[in-house]
This record gives sequence, C-alpha cells and structure tokens, in this order.
Amino acid sequence: MLKPRIPKIVRRKRKVTVGAVPGTLVAPAEARPPVMRMIAYGEQDLVENEISDPSELLPYLKTHPVVWLDVVGLGDTELLTTIGEILGLHRLALEDVLNTNHRSKVEQFGDVDFLIARMASREAGLLDLEQVSLFLGRKTEGETKYGGFVVSFQERAGDCFEPVRERIREARGRIRRVGPDYLAYALLDAMVDAAYPVVEEIGDELEVLDALILEEADPELANRVHGVKRELLTLRRALWPLREAIHTWLREEGELLQEDTIPYIRDCADHVVQLVDYVESNRELCNALSDLHDSRMNNRLNEVMKVLTIMSSIFIPLGFLAGLYGMNFNPELDGNMPETQWRFGYVYVLALMATIAVGMVAYFRRKKWI
Amino acid sequence: MLKPRIPKIVRRKRKVTVGAVPGTLVAPAEARPPVMRMIAYGEQDLVENEISDPSELLPYLKTHPVVWLDVVGLGDTELLTTIGEILGLHRLALEDVLNTNHRSKVEQFGDVDFLIARMASREAGLLDLEQVSLFLGRKTEGETKYGGFVVSFQERAGDCFEPVRERIREARGRIRRVGPDYLAYALLDAMVDAAYPVVEEIGDELEVLDALILEEADPELANRVHGVKRELLTLRRALWPLREAIHTWLREEGELLQEDTIPYIRDCADHVVQLVDYVESNRELCNALSDLHDSRMNNRLNEVMKVLTIMSSIFIPLGFLAGLYGMNFNPELDGNMPETQWRFGYVYVLALMATIAVGMVAYFRRKKWI
Amino acid sequence: MLKPRIPKIVRRKRKVTVGAVPGTLVAPAEARPPVMRMIAYGEQDLVENEISDPSELLPYLKTHPVVWLDVVGLGDTELLTTIGEILGLHRLALEDVLNTNHRSKVEQFGDVDFLIARMASREAGLLDLEQVSLFLGRKTEGETKYGGFVVSFQERAGDCFEPVRERIREARGRIRRVGPDYLAYALLDAMVDAAYPVVEEIGDELEVLDALILEEADPELANRVHGVKRELLTLRRALWPLREAIHTWLREEGELLQEDTIPYIRDCADHVVQLVDYVESNRELCNALSDLHDSRMNNRLNEVMKVLTIMSSIFIPLGFLAGLYGMNFNPELDGNMPETQWRFGYVYVLALMATIAVGMVAYFRRKKWI
Amino acid sequence: MLKPRIPKIVRRKRKVTVGAVPGTLVAPAEARPPVMRMIAYGEQDLVENEISDPSELLPYLKTHPVVWLDVVGLGDTELLTTIGEILGLHRLALEDVLNTNHRSKVEQFGDVDFLIARMASREAGLLDLEQVSLFLGRKTEGETKYGGFVVSFQERAGDCFEPVRERIREARGRIRRVGPDYLAYALLDAMVDAAYPVVEEIGDELEVLDALILEEADPELANRVHGVKRELLTLRRALWPLREAIHTWLREEGELLQEDTIPYIRDCADHVVQLVDYVESNRELCNALSDLHDSRMNNRLNEVMKVLTIMSSIFIPLGFLAGLYGMNFNPELDGNMPETQWRFGYVYVLALMATIAVGMVAYFRRKKWI
Amino acid sequence: MLKPRIPKIVRRKRKVTVGAVPGTLVAPAEARPPVMRMIAYGEQDLVENEISDPSELLPYLKTHPVVWLDVVGLGDTELLTTIGEILGLHRLALEDVLNTNHRSKVEQFGDVDFLIARMASREAGLLDLEQVSLFLGRKTEGETKYGGFVVSFQERAGDCFEPVRERIREARGRIRRVGPDYLAYALLDAMVDAAYPVVEEIGDELEVLDALILEEADPELANRVHGVKRELLTLRRALWPLREAIHTWLREEGELLQEDTIPYIRDCADHVVQLVDYVESNRELCNALSDLHDSRMNNRLNEVMKVLTIMSSIFIPLGFLAGLYGMNFNPELDGNMPETQWRFGYVYVLALMATIAVGMVAYFRRKKWI
Repeated sequence: MLKPRIPKIVRRKRKVTVGAVPGTLVAPAEARPPVMRMIAYGEQDLVENEISDPSELLPYLKTHPVVWLDVVGLGDTELLTTIGEILGLHRLALEDVLNTNHRSKVEQFGDVDFLIARMASREAGLLDLEQVSLFLGRKTEGETKYGGFVVSFQERAGDCFEPVRERIREARGRIRRVGPDYLAYALLDAMVDAAYPVVEEIGDELEVLDALILEEADPELANRVHGVKRELLTLRRALWPLREAIHTWLREEGELLQEDTIPYIRDCADHVVQLVDYVESNRELCNALSDLHDSRMNNRLNEVMKVLTIMSSIFIPLGFLAGLYGMNFNPELDGNMPETQWRFGYVYVLALMATIAVGMVAYFRRKKWI
Repeated sequence: MLKPRIPKIVRRKRKVTVGAVPGTLVAPAEARPPVMRMIAYGEQDLVENEISDPSELLPYLKTHPVVWLDVVGLGDTELLTTIGEILGLHRLALEDVLNTNHRSKVEQFGDVDFLIARMASREAGLLDLEQVSLFLGRKTEGETKYGGFVVSFQERAGDCFEPVRERIREARGRIRRVGPDYLAYALLDAMVDAAYPVVEEIGDELEVLDALILEEADPELANRVHGVKRELLTLRRALWPLREAIHTWLREEGELLQEDTIPYIRDCADHVVQLVDYVESNRELCNALSDLHDSRMNNRLNEVMKVLTIMSSIFIPLGFLAGLYGMNFNPELDGNMPETQWRFGYVYVLALMATIAVGMVAYFRRKKWI
Repeated sequence: MLKPRIPKIVRRKRKVTVGAVPGTLVAPAEARPPVMRMIAYGEQDLVENEISDPSELLPYLKTHPVVWLDVVGLGDTELLTTIGEILGLHRLALEDVLNTNHRSKVEQFGDVDFLIARMASREAGLLDLEQVSLFLGRKTEGETKYGGFVVSFQERAGDCFEPVRERIREARGRIRRVGPDYLAYALLDAMVDAAYPVVEEIGDELEVLDALILEEADPELANRVHGVKRELLTLRRALWPLREAIHTWLREEGELLQEDTIPYIRDCADHVVQLVDYVESNRELCNALSDLHDSRMNNRLNEVMKVLTIMSSIFIPLGFLAGLYGMNFNPELDGNMPETQWRFGYVYVLALMATIAVGMVAYFRRKKWI
Repeated sequence: MLKPRIPKIVRRKRKVTVGAVPGTLVAPAEARPPVMRMIAYGEQDLVENEISDPSELLPYLKTHPVVWLDVVGLGDTELLTTIGEILGLHRLALEDVLNTNHRSKVEQFGDVDFLIARMASREAGLLDLEQVSLFLGRKTEGETKYGGFVVSFQERAGDCFEPVRERIREARGRIRRVGPDYLAYALLDAMVDAAYPVVEEIGDELEVLDALILEEADPELANRVHGVKRELLTLRRALWPLREAIHTWLREEGELLQEDTIPYIRDCADHVVQLVDYVESNRELCNALSDLHDSRMNNRLNEVMKVLTIMSSIFIPLGFLAGLYGMNFNPELDGNMPETQWRFGYVYVLALMATIAVGMVAYFRRKKWI
Repeated sequence: MLKPRIPKIVRRKRKVTVGAVPGTLVAPAEARPPVMRMIAYGEQDLVENEISDPSELLPYLKTHPVVWLDVVGLGDTELLTTIGEILGLHRLALEDVLNTNHRSKVEQFGDVDFLIARMASREAGLLDLEQVSLFLGRKTEGETKYGGFVVSFQERAGDCFEPVRERIREARGRIRRVGPDYLAYALLDAMVDAAYPVVEEIGDELEVLDALILEEADPELANRVHGVKRELLTLRRALWPLREAIHTWLREEGELLQEDTIPYIRDCADHVVQLVDYVESNRELCNALSDLHDSRMNNRLNEVMKVLTIMSSIFIPLGFLAGLYGMNFNPELDGNMPETQWRFGYVYVLALMATIAVGMVAYFRRKKWI
C-alpha cells in the first residue's frame, strides 16, 4: 500500500557566471535541444505545426488571433535569442527562462507579460517541479498590431498541457472564441490542477504513515516522514510565490488581460491558496508525526528498560544468595555457613528465594511496570 | 469519562480532471442523489415543499419575497446545471460546490453572492466538516426583479438548519419580516454555532488528557493528544478562512446585503474569531501537553533506570564477594583463601557484605535516588 | 516560598442553543441572581443606592450627569431584558454579556458603546478571569438628551472597582467633574491595573521555578511549569484582543468619547501592551524552562547510567574471574585448573582482579566519567 | 576566558495601587533620593550647577537656548510634582517615569515630547536595563516662548551620559550650536551606543559556549545557555519597542524636532534595528545551541550504554559458563558433568570462553560499536 | 566529497566609543591601509589609474561621465575624510562605512545615494561576508554639474568586481553607454551573483548531510548541521535587509536613478528574494535534519539497549540456576539439593536451561526485538 521508498526530489542548479553582462543567456546543465510546436487558431481556423525556425511564426501572427509557440528543451540559447528578437521578449526575462531554479513570478516587460510557474509531477516517489515560463504578448510592427501570442518554455517533454491542446483542437469551452490571455490562464490552470494529485498523493502517504506510527515506531518511518517533509518544503517554495504572482497579475492593467478572463484567474488564485493551505497543514501534520514518532520511540525504550530492570532486579539478588551458599568456608569451623549443614537448609533457601521473587514481582506490580 | 478512541477525521478528496474546461462539473466520489426541499415565505405566507424539478421554483420566486432551496446530496451534476441556469449561478461557483474540499470563502459572481462554509459535527470521536455552499441572489427577468433566493447545497442529510426552519415556520424573531440576506446569515450563524459544541467537546477532552498526563505518562495518551492535534488542525483550516471570508462579505457593496443585517453578520464574524481563538489556544495546549508527556516519559525512564542501577550496584559487588569465596583454590596450600579456614570467617564476610550494602544505600540516599 | 500547588484556571463554558434566534438570552451555567447598585453623581451631588427595579434609574438619569448601574450576577435574563429596554441596549450585546467566555472587544451599537474585558484575580493558585461587560451611553427621549450612563455587568461579587467608587464618593481626581466616558475609562483602567499583580505573581513563580530547575530537575517542577504555561496562555487570550479593542475605541468618533479622555485611554492601552509584552516574554521563558528541565533530566539519566555502567564494568569481569576459579573441574586430572593448586594462586588471582579494577577505573577517568 | 557565572538580570517591579487616580505618583521600591544637576548652554555660554530646588531653573530658561536638567534618583514624588508644574509635564507621563518597568516609547503630551528608553549595562554577568525618561519641551509663559529644555530622569547614579556632557563643555561637534532636540537625540544615541558592548559581550560568550559545546556536553553549559537566553529575551523586550518608538518620533510634526536633526535620529533608529537584529540572531543561535547540547547529551548516553552493553554481553555468557561448571552435581553419577572429569576439560572450557568473547567482539565490530 | 570541517564564520566587531560625536570616524580593528583605484570612462574614452591622493579625481570628474573610485582597505580615516569632503559624502555615512558589521541598507544623504551590502565568499568552509559600501552621486560646483561618480569601499583585496571591470574595459554590454547608476547596479548585482555559489555550496553540503544522516546518526554530523545552521543564520542576516534596501532604492525619486536602470535593479531585487528563499528553506531543512538526527540517535540507543536486555534476560536466569546448583549445602542431609545426587541431574538442568533460553528468545521474537 505504502510506497516503501523515501521520496526523492529532482534538484535544479543555477549556472551563475558572476558579474556577467545582465541578460547573458547560459543554458542550464543537462538542458536538451529544443523542439518547437506551434498552434495558431481563431474561432474558425486552426493550424498545428512542428516548426524548426521561429520566423515561420510570422505569417500566422498576421492571420490568426492567437498563436501558441510551445518550446520544449532549453539547450539552444541562440534559438532563444531569435525568438526573443522576433516577438520582442526582454533579455532579462529570457535569462530567467534559463535559470530553471527561479521562483514563480509574474512580471511585465513593456507590453509583454512574463510568468514563471512550476509543473509538479511525482512518479515512483520522485518529485519533479519542472519550470515552465510563459510569455503573453501581441506582435506589433510599427503602428500595426497583429494577433496575440503565448510562448511557453518547458525543460522536458511530457507535460500537463495535452488537455488544453485537445480543448483547442475540438473547440471545447470558450477557448477558441477568446484571446491569448485565456490561453495563458488555461496553461497556468492546467499546471495548478496538476499539482492537486501530487499534493493529495503526499497527503495519502501521510495518512498511512500516521496510522503506522500510531501502531508502532520504526526508524524507517521517521526517514519517510522526513522525506515527505522535504517534499512539502519544496512544494511550498514553488506554490507560495505563485499565489502572490497571480495576485500581481490580477492587479495589472493593460489591454492584454481582458475583463472576462479575470474571474477565471481569480478562481485559479483560489486553487493555489487551497493548495498552499493543504501543503501547510500537511507540514504541520508532518511535525506532529515526527513528535509522535519520537514519543513512541521513547516509550519503546521505556518498555525495553523495564524488561531489563525487572529481570535484573529479580535474579540479581537471587543469584547473590546462590553465590553466598556456594562459598567454600569450612563448615566444620565455628560460625561458618551453618545453614549448609541444616536439614532442609536448601529448602529454606529456596523458600527465601521464592519470597524475594514474589516480593519483587509485587513491587513491580504496584509500580504498574508489569 | 474520556472517550477511549483516538479521534478520526472524515477526509474529502477532490476529483480533478487536469486541464478540463473550467466550470466542468464532476460529482465528488461517493456523492449521493440529491433531494430538494423548498421553503418560500413572506411576512404573511409560507409554503414548504419537497420538489423534484427546479423549475417548480419559478412561480414562488414571483410571489414570495424569499425562496430557500435546500439541496441535500451532490450526486446529480445535471440537476446542478439546471438549477444554475434557472437562477443564474456561475459555472465556476457550481464547480466549487462539487469540490467538497474547498476552503471557506465568499465570492461575488455578478449579482449573486456565493458562500462556502463548513458544518462541524463530531460523533463518537469522528469529526466531520461537511461542506455547505450557499447562493444568495435575486431572480431577474429582463428588467423585472422578482423575489430573492437562497440556495444551500449539502453533502448529506442531517444538518443544523432545523432550528432555522422552525423559526421560519413559527415566524419567530425577525426572519419572516426581512429579506434573503438575513436567511443566508441565519444559516451561516447556525453553522458557526454548531461548531461551538464540537470545539468545546475537544477542549473538554484536552482537560481530561491534561489531568491524566499530569498524573502519569502513557503512550496511549500521546496517541490521543496527537489525534486531538489533528482535529484542531482540521478545524483551524475550516475556520480561519471563514473569518476572512465573512469580513470580505461585510465589505461588499450591493443591494443584496442590507444595512440592518450588517450588525448580525458582524456578530457572526465575532463568533468565528472566538472559535479560531479557542482552537488556537487549544493547539498550543496540545503542544504543551505533548512536551509534558515526553517530559514525564523521560522521568519514568529515569525512575526505571534508578531501580536497575540501585539493585545492580548493591548486589553486583556482593555477588562478586560471594563468588570470590566460592573459588576452589586449595586451602591447604599457603596463601590460598585462608579466610575460609578462619573461625567466623563466614560471619566476617557477611558483615563486610552488610557494610558494603549499607554504604551503597547511603550513597544513593545522598544522591537523592532513594 | 513557592506555592506547592499546580495552578488551576476557572473555566467558563458557553451555553449554545444552536440556531436560536440571535439575541436570545440564555443565562450561563451557575449564574447567580443579580444585585443592582446605582451611583448617580454630578460635580456637586451624589446618590448611592441599592435598587431592585431598573426603572428606579429613570429620575436620576434626568437629574444627574452620570449614572452608573453596577449589576452583579447574570442569573436573571428578564431583568437584563428590562434594563436593555430602558437604556436602549442592543439584544446582540446583551447576548454577549451572558456569553461569559467572550473575547474582549469594543463595539458600537448605535449610540451605545459596548465593552467586554476581563478582570483577573488569582487566589491560592486559582486563576479567574471574570468577564465584565460595560455599556456607555446617553439616555434620550425623543429629542431630549438626558445624562449619560454606564452599566457594568459582573459575574460575581468581589471586584476591583471599590477604589473607583471611593474616588467618586470623595470626589478625588477629576472623576466627578467629567462625563460617563471617564467613568468607563476608570473602570477599564482598574481592571487593567488589577491584572498587574496577577502577572507579576506568575512572573515571581517563574523566577523561583527557574532557580529550582537550575539546581535540580524534578518532574513536579515540570508539572508546575506546565501549569504556569497554561495560565499565561489564558491570560494572553484575555489581554491580546483587549489591546486591539481599546485601539478600536480610540479610533471611534462620536459625542460619547471626549477629547480630554483620549490621553487617559491611550495610557490604558499602553498598559495593556506592557502586560501582553510581559506575558509573552514569560511564555518564552516558560518554554526555555521546559527545555532546560528536559536537558537536566537527560543529564540525570546520564549520571544514573554512568554509575550503573561503572559498577557493572568493574565487577562483572571480576565476578567472571571468581566464577572461573569456582568451577569444579577435577584438579587431579591434567590441565584442569592447575592454578588452584599453586602456592599463592589465590593471591595471584586477587592481584589480577585488583589490576583489572584499577584499569577500569583508569579507563573511566580518562573518559571523564568519574 | 568564559565567565563561569550564570548571568543574572536586575528585575524591576511596578508598584500598582489598583484603581488609584490616574497620574498618582508612587515612588518605586528602593528608589533613592534625587540629585539634580543642571547644564544651561548656548553657543557662547555654559552654566553647570547642582541645584536643590527646581525653581532655580527658571532664570536660565530665559537666558539660555538649552537647559538640561538631569535628575538621578526617583525617591521624591513631591519634587517630581514641582518639576512637572514648573515645566508643564503631564501627570500621566510623570506616573510613567516612576513605573520603572515601562516599555520604551515616545509620546507627545501637548508641546512636550516624552521618551522612555533603557540604558543597558552588564557588570560581572549582572545585566541591568535602567529606565531613563526624557522630556523635551520649551518653556512658555503666556505668549512668550523661552528656551528649550531637556529633563532626564535616571534611577541611579552612574550613566553613559558623561561623554555628552564633555561634548557640551568643550563645544565639540554641533551640540552647542543647535537646539534641545539635538541634545535629546545625543542622550538617546548614547544609550543606544551603550547597548553595543553589552550585546557584543553576550555574543562573545555565545561564541565561547558554542565552541565548548561542540567539544563536549556538560549540564553546566546548558545552564549558561539558558542564562544567556534569558538575557537576550530581556534585551529584546527593551530594544524592540524602542525601534517603533523612534520611528513614531520621526513621524512627529511640530516645532521641537528640527529638520537637520532628523538624519541623526534616523541613524540612531538604524542602530537600534541593527541591535535588535543582532539580538534576534543570537537568540536563534541560543536555541540551536540548546538543541546541539541535547543532541550531544544523547550521544554521551549512547556511548555510556554501549560500554555497558559490550561489557555485559561479553562477560555475562562467560560468567554463566563458569557458573555452570561450578555446579555441585555428583560427578560420580551417570551423566553428571562428565566434562569436569575430562583431561584438559578446563582448557576446553577456556577455549570455548575465548571463542565466545572473540565472537561478541566481532559482532560489536560489525555493528560499529567498537 | 563532503568537506570534513565544521564551517566557520568570519566575525566582525564594531568599535564603539559610547557617546562620541556622531560621525566620528574610527577605523575597525585590523583594518588595512587603503589602496585606491580609479576608472573614469565615457562611451569613447577610458582611463584606469591607481591613485594615491583623492584630489587626483577632480579633473576626471569634469571630463568623463562616470568616475569609479574603488577604495580597498579601511585603515586610514583621514583619507576617508578627504574623499568625503571632495565628493560631498555625509559624515554619518562615512561612519557607517567603517562600522563593518552594519546591516545592508540604502539611504539618501542629500543628492548622494549610499548603499551597504555584503560580498559573500566561502573558502575551505570559512564563510566571509565582507562589507562593501557604495556611494553614487554627481559632483557639483556651485551651479555646474560635472560627471557622476561611484565610490566603493571594501575591507580587503580580492573581490567579485573583476568581471565588471572587464566589461567596462572591453565596452561589453551597455555599461559604457549609460550613467553611474548602472555601474552601481552592476556592482550590486555582482555581489548578489557572488552569493549564489556560496548558498548552493551550502545547499550541496546539506544534501550530503541529509543522505549521511538517513544512513546513520553520528554526533559529528550533528556538529556539521549545527555549523551549517549558523552559516545560514549569518547569510540570512546579510540578505534579508538587502531585499528591503533595494526596494527602498527603487522607490526613490531623483535624477540619479534613471528610468531604464529600474528593470535591472528590479531583477536584482528578484535574485535577492530568490536567495533569501533558498536560505530560508535550507534553514528549515537544517532543523528537519537536526530532528531526524536526534530521532536516529534515539533509535540507536534503542538498539543498544535491546541487545543488552536480550543478553541479560537470557543469561541472568541461567546464571542463577547454575549458581543454585553450585551451593554447598550438605547433600547428605535430608532435603538438601537432592537433584545433585540424581542420575542425569546435570542433563535435566541443562535441558531446563535450554528451555528457558528458548522461551526468552521466543518472547523477544514475539515482541519483535529480534
């Protein structure tokens, strides 16, 4: 029932070149070569392509209200530069895209909204919080404004965006009728939704751990509680700033975010708060479990010590008595171990021993140790 | 006196379909088929019906100032959709109704106020925080405004609203003379009031646990304190956001919430603060109790160890002496155990042993171990 | 010096009738029949009476600038209703008067200010935080405004208001020259002042406990620290909201609270902050003391274990040696215990034993156990 | 190097007369008779006097821009009243002067600024936080405004103001060229500066304790860490409100505080924040040290127990074997202890014992206990 | 892999002369003689010099848009005074430059911005947080405004500014085209970037410690966790106020900070928040690790005690039996140890002993101790 592994967390490291020109793009360690997929759509029309050159986007930006470019893999900094130039993305934002350990945030660079969030997954006890960066903007050329675009950058293939793509393809819901802001919301919402099963799986494991610890302490359980604690710490670090970020986004003014998308984003913010809430109370439960485990551990030590004390306290005096009558004093001399020469001396001693044993047992009974 | 069970908590799980169209209605696991009860009333008039089709409401909305639809059971998403369409409830709100693990909140969707709160009950040590969703609105058709309505959604039969129904039936208090906002308040207040006995029952158990632990440590008690801690954690998660939610409601402007209902809602907010306060200080008491329990546990270990140490320290040296004179060195040879050939050698040894024993006892007395 | 009892706290319970009409008056459990005392005064004039019917107040309200009605005992809900009707007190406020577990607050109901605070006392280690409710208002009839009034409700006889009464009787200070707001302040201030000796007595006990624990750990001390912790928790619950409440009162605008009373109330708020401060730092001291106690407890266990280990480690090997030479191998056969047939074999063995004992002692010395 | 004492703290108690007229002056316990010293100065002129009657101040107020009255000792409430009347100090402020346990604050009473701060000193491990009260005002008679004054009240002789006096006497810095606000700042700054060596001495002791505990646990060290914890708690209680108080002072508007003194006071506020910071991180270090100490203590217990277990586990089985062959079964009967009649039986047994001992040692090696 | 040292932290002490004239410059202990390096640059032109007299700056200020004076070593207070006079730096700011334990801050003194930040480095487990003070201003003479300047004060040679110097020399990025505010930002950013490897190195050590502790408890590990805890405490003290400081800087209005530098500074603030975040969650991980270590330690004690208890509980009763039959009661008398005279008595006893041993083992099996 309970996964026997101690959960692990995928770590991300920033590659910093201290003092580099701000906006210098450095691919993260182990970054993969990028694959680009484009979906351009309007209420009537839909084009879905895998593209290899970002300039292929340009015609679609002129003909479709919304163009979504999904870049999977951060291994090619030149490509990033090109995309940035074509769509007018700020260098500092692109630098943050490659800094895959960045905290969630929403920032406005001129007319482009830039969002960083994390996509949670947990397979075989390995928690991964992949960074996803979203750009939401509108292509302009001189005075002319073309369609809006959303660019998403992911670290790896495998994401939670497939249902959103399905909704676009099948024109389910309002997604095809509305602008790129709704698409950005839909992607963010998919990421938030994807965190629910992760958080609940962790919650379930805690339930099981709780039940097991109530039953019996075991150092292995302490290790697992510690592992869950670390996961919750990592999740909180991912979710807490997201809450704040979405609220910043809601306060933003500009033509990108439209009035009727607002309640949807508010709803999404609500879900993040619920997740944070859940993570927080699980963290407190974790601490309570650690305490309970320690308490039970102490109790076991108590039990062990009681057994030792009872055994020793009964048999050490008896052993002493036996030893006493095993002494080799010459019984023929006066006063030397006359008991050994008594009739039934042995029986008397056995009786004495039984009395002592019974007395000790009674004493431990009274102390409620037995 | 003290319930011997470790308290349990009813868990709720959200069923998430990641990336689904926002506003998709999915019934929670184990949801029951809904039963609808309607009470329509004005100052003079009262109609109470069980209905099977939400459209039966429509005539009453035109004739009565207040219509209360109470839906028990969340198993029929189509019915929910119909109710939503008839009364103009937002899809996102209906989605939250079915998400029975939602945090308490108050939200405005257009002209409709949407409240989520939790109804606490605790039977045989099983804490249940059933989610209740309330809609407060006014039916409009074109320019015409009809009577106000309150819709309440509960997960299960059995609620704390019966006294409110009685007050409506018997026209006690001001409830029949005023609008639907007062009804919504009355329902919320009933839920808040219902939390008092739960919180106080838990407080009473803590009192008993406190007294028991002051008397004696017992791992069973630690388990129970842990159980109460979890209950308080759960209660706090339910009550804390409610406080904030009611304050949001109070700040709201609109025609729904009328001036003279405000002091009542403020009073209700006050009670929630009192409950949160009580839960918080019980939580701190819980932590203090865990600490006290651990401290007493350590003390018991100390006691056990002292007994062992005293017994061992007295009898091990005596046993050694006895063993010494039990050695089989040939007493006929020079220097070999001459004591065994002394007159009264045995008595001398016994005296020596008594001296050692008395010395050890005196030593332990001075150390205040005995 | 130190009171040997573990401090106890008087508990109050709310009697909730879930879903009752708001403003329903239910006397708390064990409430006593009320006794009413009235003091009506102006700069020149003073009338002090015990009254049995609240309507007796009416003439004085017309002739004296300030009328103080002090009701001791909450057992008669009808009387409360009558007082409320005569003086125009809100039903919800009266309900809170009877809810003797209410948190401190200041609320405005129309023209009447309503204050709840707690009067601390601690006798023989029994902490009691009696709820006192104050109403401050002005009697109006149509357009005519009569004198101001203060109504105070106490649970029990025995209060800290006697010095205020004395000041009124003897016209000491400014109390007779100013309005009812100053009287309300004076009563509140008396309650805050009465908390000082309680808090300082607890502080003194902590000092003593600190000194005792620094000297020696004792489970009895842990129990007492726990008792003090609970008292401080209770005091904080009483004082913390009072701080906030007084600040709310200061921000209030209206004719009741006059400009020159403000610095006095500000001073009173200051004292509450000081008390909260003191309680908080005592709470932290309590936690530090619990930790210290546990640490000393562990140390004692260490001491006990060292004694056991030293005794055992020295005598168990010696005992083994003794046992060895107590074996009954036939010394007449080859290789069987030839030592027992040596001249001075016994002395050699004793020397060996002494060497081992000295070696063990040296070993424990080096480990700094002795 | 390390002071061997557990640090002590001078305690102050408020003498409260519950319900007394606000502004009643009660000298604190053990207050000393006051000594008054006056320094009146302007850019050119300086008069320094010990005075016995506060009315001696009056002429100087008319002739000098700044008059500083320094009152050391709070034992004479009448003198306080006289000073208050002459300079127009509020009764409530004077009451606070005598309440020597007051938290730091800045308050405005009409045209007079009233400051309470604490002067830290620590000699031979005795921490004292003497309360110093400052009044900053300007003497007015009718419409005429005379020079400004600063009145400082100290509990005891011995202060940190001497360098300020020197600066006045020698006209160093800007002090003689500017108004009384700068003098008040200079005194406050001297008090804040005086806290630095105290805080750093405590920090140094913590460093030493840290090093000692890393080396070895010792209950005496736990006591000292506890003592330092208490000191830091006390210091924080003194410094935290001061920070807030100085910021309140900075926000104040009025003619007393002049534009070019503001950066100095801001600098002083900065230093208080730095002190609080330092105290806070030392407090966290204290907690970390307590934890480390407990951890090391547990480790020592482990070490002790291992020695006991190893000794017992090796020698108890050997002792049993020896005991076995010490039994007195008649070897002449069949099956009774034939080993004792073997040639080299003794040697065989010794070999068996050696094997067991080696086996146990190997077992403990594998467990890494040895 | 893991550095075996317990990390150390370089401590800084403030030299306070209590009550000194504010702005008195006192060199910190162990301050070194200063070395001054100047870089003056514009878009076309670059001069880099080591100078010995600050007045050498003056001509460059008139000819170059940006002059950067880098002072390494704080040992010469006169030089500081001269620099301050030439460039118009406030005495209080210069005092803070020498107070090398100052918390990070941004302050405006007239037209000059003053920044304090810390440059983190960690070599061989020695954490150093060197204080760097930056002045950003513009030289004015009467009405004439000359070029801007940045003055940086460092405690020691060896810094993280070399890449910035390179960027200036090679005119990389925008640094040569823009004003002194960008230079100040670039230096601050270099310091923030330099903290990343430090924080991540600590994070890596924690990872290793986590893995080691999950494997086995060891007091040495506890010491190291404690060392890391202290480092994180120190880092937090350095970074937390920096966050606040940069936000203050951003809110500043004036001609110094130009519109297009703002997003860069905001980005820098973002990085500081990320660092603080990382430090905070590592601190929580540290606490979790301490707890885990203690828990494992307890577990080891349990293990040790179990071995002892099992050994003792099996062999002590057997030893007693052996001792019993080693008694020297005269078997020729009635009732005295008849078993010793039985045929196969020895075998019976051995069988009894085996039964007891098997029974005890079964008992411990059932208790799951073996």
